[in-house]
Amino acid sequence: MKIIFYEKNTDTGAWLRNFARELPEADVRVWEPGDTAPADYAVVWRAPRELFAHRPDLKAVFNLGAGVDAILDAERKEPGTLPRNAMLVRLEDSGMARQMVEYASYAVLRYMRRLDEYEALQREGRWEKLTQHARRDFTVGVLGLGVLGGEVARGLLALGVPVRGFSRTPKTIEGVDVYAGPERFDAFLDGAKMLINLLPHTPDTEGVLNARTFGRLAHGAYLVNVARGAHLVDDDLIAALDSGQLAAAMLDVFHTEPLPQAHPFWQHPRVSVTPHVSAETLREESVVQIAAKIRALARGEAISGIVDIARGY
Amino acid sequence: MKIIFYEKNTDTGAWLRNFARELPEADVRVWEPGDTAPADYAVVWRAPRELFAHRPDLKAVFNLGAGVDAILDAERKEPGTLPRNAMLVRLEDSGMARQMVEYASYAVLRYMRRLDEYEALQREGRWEKLTQHARRDFTVGVLGLGVLGGEVARGLLALGVPVRGFSRTPKTIEGVDVYAGPERFDAFLDGAKMLINLLPHTPDTEGVLNARTFGRLAHGAYLVNVARGAHLVDDDLIAALDSGQLAAAMLDVFHTEPLPQAHPFWQHPRVSVTPHVSAETLREESVVQIAAKIRALARGEAISGIVDIARGY
Repeated sequence: MKIIFYEKNTDTGAWLRNFARELPEADVRVWEPGDTAPADYAVVWRAPRELFAHRPDLKAVFNLGAGVDAILDAERKEPGTLPRNAMLVRLEDSGMARQMVEYASYAVLRYMRRLDEYEALQREGRWEKLTQHARRDFTVGVLGLGVLGGEVARGLLALGVPVRGFSRTPKTIEGVDVYAGPERFDAFLDGAKMLINLLPHTPDTEGVLNARTFGRLAHGAYLVNVARGAHLVDDDLIAALDSGQLAAAMLDVFHTEPLPQAHPFWQHPRVSVTPHVSAETLREESVVQIAAKIRALARGEAISGIVDIARGY
Repeated sequence: MKIIFYEKNTDTGAWLRNFARELPEADVRVWEPGDTAPADYAVVWRAPRELFAHRPDLKAVFNLGAGVDAILDAERKEPGTLPRNAMLVRLEDSGMARQMVEYASYAVLRYMRRLDEYEALQREGRWEKLTQHARRDFTVGVLGLGVLGGEVARGLLALGVPVRGFSRTPKTIEGVDVYAGPERFDAFLDGAKMLINLLPHTPDTEGVLNARTFGRLAHGAYLVNVARGAHLVDDDLIAALDSGQLAAAMLDVFHTEPLPQAHPFWQHPRVSVTPHVSAETLREESVVQIAAKIRALARGEAISGIVDIARGY
């Protein structure tokens, strides 16, 4: 079988070596502009439109990430970008969920124990004890209960904080208060002390982190965004921080990445900026997962992680 | 029964109310200088020598903390400070272990995921991805496996990092590599990526966090001190940070507290200072524990947490 690989900012040689080890029967090549030779599968991250053009031969496109919004956006703008018969397959976990749990746990510990404020006090040379937030009052709302969101909700239970979850469709996670469907959204938010966003990015979820949403949380609540920058109304966050409705925010994703130099988030004392590293694609785990799915497809078996293109994730 | 209570910087009224609820049969009063009226028990934190003077009546002294070094130091300097027949009882956990696990987990996540460096990059307005430390290589050594140290070692296993523990006497903690006895100290340190100190403060353990100790850890290792400032040789830490042998340190305890304004730790870019808050004494839990022990003693039963004064903890 023939596989084309495309990811711009990576060590492509290392990816090819991993594929050679995990899927020795395949012929894997790095796609370059102008390459129209046959291919059965594509393994890509933010591939140019040209890669997909005139490729009725592709059986599946494997996206090197959990979020397929970039690829679907291209399809929405110019229908027919994705090959007609190819299924689109997202990366499922492969070490990402654990990283997300780590990032979210760090945020909970940092804010519950007020370690962000101790850092600010240190810069002023001030020794001052602050009352920690009581664990039982530090309700965390996990927005989005997909593979990553579900794991984050489960993972945070270990910290002893009350955990709520919101999802479009009913779900059951032991120990987590699940609110399902748009009519339960406000109840999900009401009085939560921290909101962690793990929604997929679709036209429906854009701008969901806005003034109205923040206003329903507890006064002095915390925001963590590890999904997409487009979920957040940046000006509403700044206003909520300045009014005290939100105490602090930890952001890993932004409307434009890298975050532009002039953006106020960089210098805001109560915004933590990380450069889209909350859950990184781990090469080894990803190749093992994709190789197993390609073999399953070759045997005519069903695989998981196929994107519902109309739904958007 | 009569109980005297002494803690300088606290809401004493709230403590008395808690005692009234948990131990209504007792007559609890706040000790003031000059008070030589009879008492059966003392509940104290950093009490003046005078409180103990001429008190052969005291059956037990309850220390409002896990560390009894302050009280034993006074006894060492002026033997006879503690009433001859009173047992000295330390606070056991009462919510402190969980707080210590939180603080230690925060430090592991912060350094393993390099979130300290992302903070520094943010201050410079720089978007730059760093390679996270691999979980399997991030060996954490927990120095001291008492009630708190044991819980911290167990708690860190949940993060998936390799955990070692060092203790004076042999211990078994599932999943933790225990090194017992001084002759195993070097092997415990060798190549560890993080050292978390939870030793009791005794003459034997003073200055144990020194250049020789740091030199055996992995290059670029991390230090967390949540025990006592006297364990650390401050200048050796600064030198190890400046040479790169240590990458960063998170310190909650200091030789002098509050940490003096002029101390270099305040401004060092790779030292995090917190004001002795890693595990705070929680009033409600402490009173419940002490009340139960007083009742047990009144019934002539054995209690746990009695300090071996010769051993020092």
